Amino acid sequence: MLGAPISSRQAKAGNLPKRRAFPLFGADGVSSVAYAPDEIILTVLIAGQMALAYSPWVGLGVATILMLVIGTYRYNIQRVGEKGDFALVQKNLGTGFAVLLGAAMMVDFVLTVAVSLSSATQYLESLLPALYSHQRLVACSLIAVVTLVCLRGINFMFRVAHWPTYIFLLLLGGTLVFGLAADMAGTLGTAVSADYEIAQSTSPEELATGVGLLVLLLRVFASGSVAMTGVNTISNATRAFARPRPRNAALTLMLMGSVTSLLLVGVLYLTWRTGAIFVLDPAQTLRVDGQNVSSDFHQTSLLLQISDTVFAAHWVTVLLGVSTVGVLVVAAMTAFTGFPMLATVLAHRQYLPVYLSARDSTALYGNGVLVLGLSSMVLVGVVGPDVHTLVQMYIVGAFTAMLLTQVSVLKNSWLAQRITPDTKKRRLIWRDLIITSIGVLASGTVLMVIILTKFTHGAWFSMLLILFLLGLMMKINKHYQRVDRQLALPQTEAELAEARALPSRVHALIYVERVRKPVLRAVSYARATRPSSIEALVVNIDEERTRQNIDAWQQLGLPLDLTVLDAPYRNPVDAVMDYVHRSRQKSPRDVLVIYLPEYVVSRWWEGIFHRRTVHRLKAQLRHEPGVVVASVPWQI
Amino acid sequence: MLGAPISSRQAKAGNLPKRRAFPLFGADGVSSVAYAPDEIILTVLIAGQMALAYSPWVGLGVATILMLVIGTYRYNIQRVGEKGDFALVQKNLGTGFAVLLGAAMMVDFVLTVAVSLSSATQYLESLLPALYSHQRLVACSLIAVVTLVCLRGINFMFRVAHWPTYIFLLLLGGTLVFGLAADMAGTLGTAVSADYEIAQSTSPEELATGVGLLVLLLRVFASGSVAMTGVNTISNATRAFARPRPRNAALTLMLMGSVTSLLLVGVLYLTWRTGAIFVLDPAQTLRVDGQNVSSDFHQTSLLLQISDTVFAAHWVTVLLGVSTVGVLVVAAMTAFTGFPMLATVLAHRQYLPVYLSARDSTALYGNGVLVLGLSSMVLVGVVGPDVHTLVQMYIVGAFTAMLLTQVSVLKNSWLAQRITPDTKKRRLIWRDLIITSIGVLASGTVLMVIILTKFTHGAWFSMLLILFLLGLMMKINKHYQRVDRQLALPQTEAELAEARALPSRVHALIYVERVRKPVLRAVSYARATRPSSIEALVVNIDEERTRQNIDAWQQLGLPLDLTVLDAPYRNPVDAVMDYVHRSRQKSPRDVLVIYLPEYVVSRWWEGIFHRRTVHRLKAQLRHEPGVVVASVPWQI
Repeated sequence: MLGAPISSRQAKAGNLPKRRAFPLFGADGVSSVAYAPDEIILTVLIAGQMALAYSPWVGLGVATILMLVIGTYRYNIQRVGEKGDFALVQKNLGTGFAVLLGAAMMVDFVLTVAVSLSSATQYLESLLPALYSHQRLVACSLIAVVTLVCLRGINFMFRVAHWPTYIFLLLLGGTLVFGLAADMAGTLGTAVSADYEIAQSTSPEELATGVGLLVLLLRVFASGSVAMTGVNTISNATRAFARPRPRNAALTLMLMGSVTSLLLVGVLYLTWRTGAIFVLDPAQTLRVDGQNVSSDFHQTSLLLQISDTVFAAHWVTVLLGVSTVGVLVVAAMTAFTGFPMLATVLAHRQYLPVYLSARDSTALYGNGVLVLGLSSMVLVGVVGPDVHTLVQMYIVGAFTAMLLTQVSVLKNSWLAQRITPDTKKRRLIWRDLIITSIGVLASGTVLMVIILTKFTHGAWFSMLLILFLLGLMMKINKHYQRVDRQLALPQTEAELAEARALPSRVHALIYVERVRKPVLRAVSYARATRPSSIEALVVNIDEERTRQNIDAWQQLGLPLDLTVLDAPYRNPVDAVMDYVHRSRQKSPRDVLVIYLPEYVVSRWWEGIFHRRTVHRLKAQLRHEPGVVVASVPWQI
Repeated sequence: MLGAPISSRQAKAGNLPKRRAFPLFGADGVSSVAYAPDEIILTVLIAGQMALAYSPWVGLGVATILMLVIGTYRYNIQRVGEKGDFALVQKNLGTGFAVLLGAAMMVDFVLTVAVSLSSATQYLESLLPALYSHQRLVACSLIAVVTLVCLRGINFMFRVAHWPTYIFLLLLGGTLVFGLAADMAGTLGTAVSADYEIAQSTSPEELATGVGLLVLLLRVFASGSVAMTGVNTISNATRAFARPRPRNAALTLMLMGSVTSLLLVGVLYLTWRTGAIFVLDPAQTLRVDGQNVSSDFHQTSLLLQISDTVFAAHWVTVLLGVSTVGVLVVAAMTAFTGFPMLATVLAHRQYLPVYLSARDSTALYGNGVLVLGLSSMVLVGVVGPDVHTLVQMYIVGAFTAMLLTQVSVLKNSWLAQRITPDTKKRRLIWRDLIITSIGVLASGTVLMVIILTKFTHGAWFSMLLILFLLGLMMKINKHYQRVDRQLALPQTEAELAEARALPSRVHALIYVERVRKPVLRAVSYARATRPSSIEALVVNIDEERTRQNIDAWQQLGLPLDLTVLDAPYRNPVDAVMDYVHRSRQKSPRDVLVIYLPEYVVSRWWEGIFHRRTVHRLKAQLRHEPGVVVASVPWQI
């Protein structure tokens, strides 16, 4: 649709400068500020409105771990380099873990699209309340549009995709600065939702025990850790950066981490100060003006609530909402560039169907884009565009992938220090080793916390999905290896000579439905190949028609016999297959060429007027060894 | 599923005795008593409850015309004989009218199924009120079941189908006899619905004018004429009767007409006497106990209302209801035996796709059964199982078909009397001529009344559908004739000699995706046919893969060259098609055989793991003249 075809020579390697790469690949991380605060607040609020004061501290905690992971992830980027993390994990931890990494990353990509565009749907609803009753449709349409754009206009997208991110950062940054200034000046108002009452679901006694509070804090932290899922995206995109690639990618990662941390803490601080709330199930827990809210009550995201509180003018909020949708769409698009790359790597290693590694006419891995689009559409269609549920599934995949890469780097460094005799170099490696260990510890702890606190909330689904994909890819790999073994060329000279030998004789059979021009052509072509024997076959379904065929055949005066096959149950395919079987048994080492005269209609729908016998015959004959099916088409 | 295969020799011509043929082919006519009274009463009631007294007279009118038509139809059966009415109409009125007859009969068959099984659904609902909210589903399931039974168990059906009709006749006859006796004894009660009030839709002033009353009476008559639609069914089934076929069919027709007339008049008389009512739109027009009825109010059919009034025991009504469903199902089944016969005749004459004339393994025209089942399911699915609406569509098709046959007989007799010199014979023919004229007049008048009074109520749809089918069949015929002209064998000896001549040279091309065993086999087979030239083709999509292929090829040491085709836009199909075009241009009179090594997976779903290139190549090559596509399968 969009975009001219691009030849293999034109398609070039990535060389994006940082100022273009950051807004593109950083969008995934930065855009998490659109939903991470909501997730943190709705978990905090389980402990009641009083607990809101804890939320900035949770934000700080998430930011600290994020910076820690990023700080240690720089080594990953250098190690992974341009080879990709699949190769790294395969080398250090073995094929099983590498395929597990692939499965986790696939789930991560699907959920990046699902979460980002579901969140975008939520923002669109806040701007256009009329969309509220059509959530699923809006979200699926959004996915469809993004898929189509990525399928056809990816180059255009690359040229403009930095604008939404920069505008979003400008608007949100501005909002936070104005809000903090107002807070210091004491002029910051309270949010509309600060007056809502919340029905408390957890009893205060339960929280009073240390264990209850700890579990809640861990759950809040696990929810907040969704802000870290953008780390993978940049590390996977290393190949698209300008040289020196690892350095530029690491710097961009650092920048993304700092910006995300600042925004997250800022938003959570202002949430606390304005008293804005966001709960999981408003119809169950919210009371406005002393009354339970109706089931179609729509909560506004915290970002927009804060903006509405800070600025008197509502149009700033509308602008912020639009730019948030923009940055979320860009985040989804990065998944559409990352997934096909991953699928290509896996398909190339025979863990996914081969055509996922085929580039289409615009030099894109179009099949991968389609698979990602359809998978996320199915997920959102089934689960619904419910950010809270999807986030629980999201974090497992992302952290599993991160942890696997980090552990590989750790093992790699460990092995390196053992074979490095130079003390100075060894010390440097040991420094890396320690830093990486800290990263592994951080990611590992986060993953454990997520699995422990979120298992029943949706994490089980991602884990099952990852395991299923792992099993599926192993199965696919086995299939390909079996095929490869069977089709491999003979290795010894004797076997080769046998394979090169020609079959002793070629028998030609011509299938005749009605003696007309196409049959004549098939007979000519068959005779031109000078087979050892040649014979025409007609199946007797209808006595009258058969007699007509025999008469016409005799009038043609051709130098070959017409054999009439009996078909008591009127199935011509069975009759021919029977005859072929018997012929093959008589001379199993000869080749049987079956000529099928076919007429090809000019318009596809004209096909419904004609018998499918030849088609069915072809499908059956494919399973017959030593048989060549020669179609002799006649174009009408 | 059901039924063993039946060979062509076992399948024999029909020889049903009258006692078996009447309940089978008469079911269509007799079963109309299940819905015709409802249709008459709901039309009469437009003039208010007072008009009910007219209804038995309308019944008598319908019965009179029915007997008139049947009396004259005997000649049709004799003339049509075993050749079928398509041939008769074609001979006397030309091909156009014969195809029109075919279209009208097809619509008639589809609506026989739709009306009968929708009415059966209504009766089932009266017996099991729980079904009421699933009308469409029940009706469509019923159609599906009947289709399946007719597809597989038709022989079993033929053995048991007379029971429902006989039981129905016995029960309904008994009910009428008991009712009439009670009426004479003065002990007949009133129906429950006699107390309902009806909101009058037509103002009494309007009816007071002669025109208004006449129009209403004509409408009532047109509704009642649905009782005559069964005439066709018996006349079309003449071939299934025992010899002498025309005589037996005519007697059965007479019997069916008498029974239907008696039942219809009896039911209408008792309806009047019990005061039972049946209205079109209960929610709009009915008031029970001074209150409008709810929209899910279910009216019971008149047959069951009368039975409930005559007998104190409700189980008699249940039995009658079940047997009514039975006879309606048999009526639908006769359409399933008639439609495929008609489709075969039309397909044989190239007005419908050929495979409608193919008998399957149980000697049935299964495709016709499927087409009828699907069409009526679509109709009922779209229109809903609404007997009233469907009946309006039904009568047009049935009467158009009847009229066309009668006019043909008339013209035939007219021509016969002109060429018959013998005065005595001429007088006999003239007698036929006059009787047939009366029949034509009767049917023609009924058809006119139907079209005039029912056009806006649904008749327009059948008329459009008939015209559409007429156009479609003409179009199909043109397509087949064009194909026949193009494929006809050459007539002159010179042309024949040219067609017999062998192409001067055969060039072999072998498409290579990867140099593996299937390619080796294709090369051996191609070489075995000793072509004038032989060449292998590989498309360069991926430099590395191409180099591997070239290396492997060189190691094989085969005596033919591997040509590398460039594919800048990575489409192997385009590259090969391009090469084939160029080869064809160089030597247009030679034959090009393209060998496609294929591997065939053992399980169908394994196909998704492999490229579709060979498949796409085959589809494209079919449109290339002078090209033979030879598939060399390798079974894995």
